Amino acid sequence: MSETLDTIIIGAGSAGLAALREVRKHTDNYRIVNDGPWGTTCARVGCMPSKLLIEAANAFHERTSFDTFGIRGAAQLSVDLPAVLERVRELRDVFVSGTIKDSDAGDHQINGRAELLGPTRVRVNGKEWNARSIIVATGTRPRFDDAWRSLGNRVLTTDTLFEQTTLGRRIAVLGLGPIGLEMAQALARLGIEVTAFATKKSAAGLSDPDVLNTLWSLLEQEFAIHVGDSATLNAHGDGVEVVSGDKRIVVDQVLVATGRVPNVEGLGLATLGVPLDDRGLPKMDPNTRQVGALPVFIAGDLDPSRALLHEAVDEGHIAGMNAMADTPQDFRRRTLLAIGFCQPNAAIVGKSFKALVDQDIVIGHIDFSKQGRARVAQQNAGLLRLYAERSSGKLLGAEMCAPAGEHLAHLLALAINNGLTVQKMLNMPIYHPVLEEGLRTALRRAAAQLEAKAISDLDKCDLRTRSVMD
Amino acid sequence: MSETLDTIIIGAGSAGLAALREVRKHTDNYRIVNDGPWGTTCARVGCMPSKLLIEAANAFHERTSFDTFGIRGAAQLSVDLPAVLERVRELRDVFVSGTIKDSDAGDHQINGRAELLGPTRVRVNGKEWNARSIIVATGTRPRFDDAWRSLGNRVLTTDTLFEQTTLGRRIAVLGLGPIGLEMAQALARLGIEVTAFATKKSAAGLSDPDVLNTLWSLLEQEFAIHVGDSATLNAHGDGVEVVSGDKRIVVDQVLVATGRVPNVEGLGLATLGVPLDDRGLPKMDPNTRQVGALPVFIAGDLDPSRALLHEAVDEGHIAGMNAMADTPQDFRRRTLLAIGFCQPNAAIVGKSFKALVDQDIVIGHIDFSKQGRARVAQQNAGLLRLYAERSSGKLLGAEMCAPAGEHLAHLLALAINNGLTVQKMLNMPIYHPVLEEGLRTALRRAAAQLEAKAISDLDKCDLRTRSVMD
Repeated sequence: MSETLDTIIIGAGSAGLAALREVRKHTDNYRIVNDGPWGTTCARVGCMPSKLLIEAANAFHERTSFDTFGIRGAAQLSVDLPAVLERVRELRDVFVSGTIKDSDAGDHQINGRAELLGPTRVRVNGKEWNARSIIVATGTRPRFDDAWRSLGNRVLTTDTLFEQTTLGRRIAVLGLGPIGLEMAQALARLGIEVTAFATKKSAAGLSDPDVLNTLWSLLEQEFAIHVGDSATLNAHGDGVEVVSGDKRIVVDQVLVATGRVPNVEGLGLATLGVPLDDRGLPKMDPNTRQVGALPVFIAGDLDPSRALLHEAVDEGHIAGMNAMADTPQDFRRRTLLAIGFCQPNAAIVGKSFKALVDQDIVIGHIDFSKQGRARVAQQNAGLLRLYAERSSGKLLGAEMCAPAGEHLAHLLALAINNGLTVQKMLNMPIYHPVLEEGLRTALRRAAAQLEAKAISDLDKCDLRTRSVMD
Repeated sequence: MSETLDTIIIGAGSAGLAALREVRKHTDNYRIVNDGPWGTTCARVGCMPSKLLIEAANAFHERTSFDTFGIRGAAQLSVDLPAVLERVRELRDVFVSGTIKDSDAGDHQINGRAELLGPTRVRVNGKEWNARSIIVATGTRPRFDDAWRSLGNRVLTTDTLFEQTTLGRRIAVLGLGPIGLEMAQALARLGIEVTAFATKKSAAGLSDPDVLNTLWSLLEQEFAIHVGDSATLNAHGDGVEVVSGDKRIVVDQVLVATGRVPNVEGLGLATLGVPLDDRGLPKMDPNTRQVGALPVFIAGDLDPSRALLHEAVDEGHIAGMNAMADTPQDFRRRTLLAIGFCQPNAAIVGKSFKALVDQDIVIGHIDFSKQGRARVAQQNAGLLRLYAERSSGKLLGAEMCAPAGEHLAHLLALAINNGLTVQKMLNMPIYHPVLEEGLRTALRRAAAQLEAKAISDLDKCDLRTRSVMD
């Protein structure tokens, strides 16, 4: 009879490590199992290296504003692509080493592939363990067609892109989700001839047609986009022929960014005795992370419903707490916040346009092409639309492609997460000249359509509680 | 007997125009008087032209990060200073024309100098008017020693800086308030040899010694700063000799940024029959803008207590409403927000460190030199410190010099304006990788010192109100 663990964490990515932090507070009697390289998707091949590439690309792109500012010599600037990629890897390695340090659980760490044998039993490297609970956080990998393997590094994913010492002159990007979008623009800004292929007019998950159209038009000024059938790839000399319907181009390399698939193969989820969906996943409670009434908890982007780093960390945190609890607790999930780091930044906060289609809302908007500070900084492109409940003024959500959109999105997220109304937001101070003044314009336009109209953004004092200059 | 107006607005700057917008809603029987050029301080000589110069300077400064990113040729870049200044004026003129359009009040507009003859009587251009109320919004002008006039354009203020077709190679900046600081850094970043003179170690009004020291060290890497006696200026060949104690340098031009003085001369405030302070201003109620019980309202930076554009607009708005009201209403002023657009941005939100010196607070901090996203973007410099009430966790204020500090300051301002606690802020979603994660670190450090500690940033659900994925 093998020993019984308090819990076993399968997967040492962002979610698994968040679970580890909780589990460690309660017990020493646990294991954390990881198959493949340690270090999170985020640090190894996701958020961090992509942002490193984007920052270099955006810095080079700045030169397009130089002449108007009165700065001469921009034409002399050039990209040293091997150097750009080397910096990406160097700093990435620093971030990866940080996550590996976080995951150091000494003898509790196991390198290997875990297989569930039931809701309380796991096999790793031929050894079987009983566990009072199991946390499954095996994550995802880029979707990739096996037929492409023969094309070697001519067909890349984010798993391999950042490993390249240089890149071809012509690159096709398949998919315009957040990753495809970010990388297509970054590669184009680094001087690569980019053609993006999408199966529909859709970018970064935006559902508001006005915001999507605005972003789409801006992107089309930077790289070619073809919307059509799923692309097929064939070797063509040293390059790759990309075919989608009538469209046929030859490129040096292809970046495949058509989504991610869950790592469920051989994981034994079927032994849990509950139904699995077409991705091979059981139903789980989003607020407890629990699978039915089993002592099994799922965290991270293995569950595609909130495949975002900060949500994976929350899910690991919840799973870790609940795996250690007598009775799993429900936790309120945070306001949804998704950001694509293209320029202008794409973002969805709270309820999307699509999710509100049947509700009685008012919409406020700001076109950043005319906004003062954006014009000063030559960043005057983009559209933000925000949605509020007509009867109450409660802010429900927003979609945008906006300069400094990542920051505006956080401001809106704080408001929505606290149930604030449009009027409460209008009561905050907005400095001058800032991009937040654009957001204020959108808020005022929404406020003007509300059932209850205020005569001022300022609150009248209650004389009893009046505070001078508070 | 002259006719009786409902109100007369003296000054058509940002505050006067905000008052005008309110007054117009209620009456046609008013006048707005302006002495000198129409167009606001903000648009003509303040916020807008300074930001135009700063954006050009920061764009040029970007080149210092290029080599590390892998971008070559930065040494070939140069500043065409006449072109930089020409763009400043061109876009400034666009913004000025916008404010002049806003102030177009047709026959209600008077060019001239107004003089109060009492709380309900005003003389303009020799004509006298009775008025049921008077709104005084005559603003300020840069402090300037008459002895310097003989030095011509060798001694500049923000009134004249942006009119220059080019600038000297060596410039002394007197004063490191928000304007001196912004302009000293911008001029240095444009390649001018800048020496700043300050009478004490103080910058952008920061009162937190740790934040001030951090910013000060960063500034000293960009230009020379001399702290000592008030500088005296003397002609020296074609240039100016600047002397402060033992320090003596010769420069081509001097920018004086030692503060602003109220435009009260000849305004007749003494005829109101109330005491005037040493600046020549009567006491006024900050929440009603009213002078005592008189039908006289003061708005804008004439009152130095909140000399910020957005506050001037609020004050004009309040003065306009109250000048038209039977009984003046008290309005709650917004959370204080002051931003200096140096890099990293300096900001004070809510209560300053100094204002909290006797209170039982906890302090959370983040050093941006080690923050992930800041490192990725090569913007890893700065310090943010936030202050919360120990007993309740209520966020009270913050001071910072931080990358994207202008945005972080707005996020904190929304929280403080709504009375949110550190814990409520920690409950919001923070994306990855973003600078807001640095703010979260500061919040967590504050939270760890609070009397009531939470086990999670997430809220437990109340089962009755449980909402899946809300």
